Amino acid sequence: MAIRYPNGKKYTAPTPDESKKTMKEKNISYSNRGKSLEDYIDETNVYYLHRNIAVIHKKPVPVQIVKVEYPSRSAAVIREAYFRTPSTTDYNGVFNGAYIDFDAKETENKTSFPLKNVHAHQVKHMEGIANQQGISFLIVRFTSLDRYFIVPCVMLLAAWKRMLDGGRKSIPLSDFEEQAIEIHLGLTPRLDYLKAITTLLP
Amino acid sequence: MAIRYPNGKKYTAPTPDESKKTMKEKNISYSNRGKSLEDYIDETNVYYLHRNIAVIHKKPVPVQIVKVEYPSRSAAVIREAYFRTPSTTDYNGVFNGAYIDFDAKETENKTSFPLKNVHAHQVKHMEGIANQQGISFLIVRFTSLDRYFIVPCVMLLAAWKRMLDGGRKSIPLSDFEEQAIEIHLGLTPRLDYLKAITTLLP
Repeated sequence: MAIRYPNGKKYTAPTPDESKKTMKEKNISYSNRGKSLEDYIDETNVYYLHRNIAVIHKKPVPVQIVKVEYPSRSAAVIREAYFRTPSTTDYNGVFNGAYIDFDAKETENKTSFPLKNVHAHQVKHMEGIANQQGISFLIVRFTSLDRYFIVPCVMLLAAWKRMLDGGRKSIPLSDFEEQAIEIHLGLTPRLDYLKAITTLLP
Repeated sequence: MAIRYPNGKKYTAPTPDESKKTMKEKNISYSNRGKSLEDYIDETNVYYLHRNIAVIHKKPVPVQIVKVEYPSRSAAVIREAYFRTPSTTDYNGVFNGAYIDFDAKETENKTSFPLKNVHAHQVKHMEGIANQQGISFLIVRFTSLDRYFIVPCVMLLAAWKRMLDGGRKSIPLSDFEEQAIEIHLGLTPRLDYLKAITTLLP
């Protein structure tokens, strides 16, 4: 299925100039302005990988390729392709024998997390992971509050079921404070989510 | 890094006509002509998923997106993108608590498997998986012989090290017969690789 744009946002490819600027800013001020949750997770996964703590990667953006050109003496160019809806979560990997699988979600909402941020097929996927004794969760960022939570699969499934049964279409912040695991930004790693999920491990 | 084409092959998008033809042929004759190893693995993974045996997916082809157009009232169109070298293996997932990670390789060679089919970064990735107690392997098809083998990570690492030490740049078929796990095509599932790797599980 083709979609208009991934994650409801227009795709913006980083230009060389922008990348350089970001690197420079980071070196000088350690500023986090404009950094997305995905940036923090990517940085954290690189840290985990280099320290041999875990091997966790983001999956590539799924695209449906329609037309490819092969100019002589240069790289193949994709000339027509469409974004597809991912059928799984964005991140997975292995941590000390445990299968880790999660997705990153951001909301501007200050009082609750709207469940429309989660797709039905992702919930089904996470349920399948749980049935295989994998560790599955969401990392949710309340952007306006700059607060980060790990939502264990079982908490998400309960909220999802409640919605399907006609209940509320969001998870209130108070539920996060009671049932989710709050994590705080650090320097290295930026977002130590693996430390936070030890209670979820077998 | 942009590459000329993924897996050394030109990309061919399936046309609706071709898909229909394949479906028809399959229904009538159960013919396997033209089916690739990836086809068999995909079919097997769907079988595993629907029977709740395991959750294992192929990762999307990684592409570097450069230019996207947003025609009004229709889906976003990627107008310029390039194939990137994958930094990991193509398949991963979870099976009864175990992290599963592998790549599929085909060779026309009848007497040995050339190690040029494997990339250095894939070997490094598989080594990292093994260090995290994940189950990592290759599924190799000798296409001309129609024989299929599971190459455990430890066997690949030994052959890779031998090559780096100046030894042979391929794994002879006799090594496969002695050290790998041979699997045979079936009907459902087509290629029951999980059954074959039970000896590799913790």
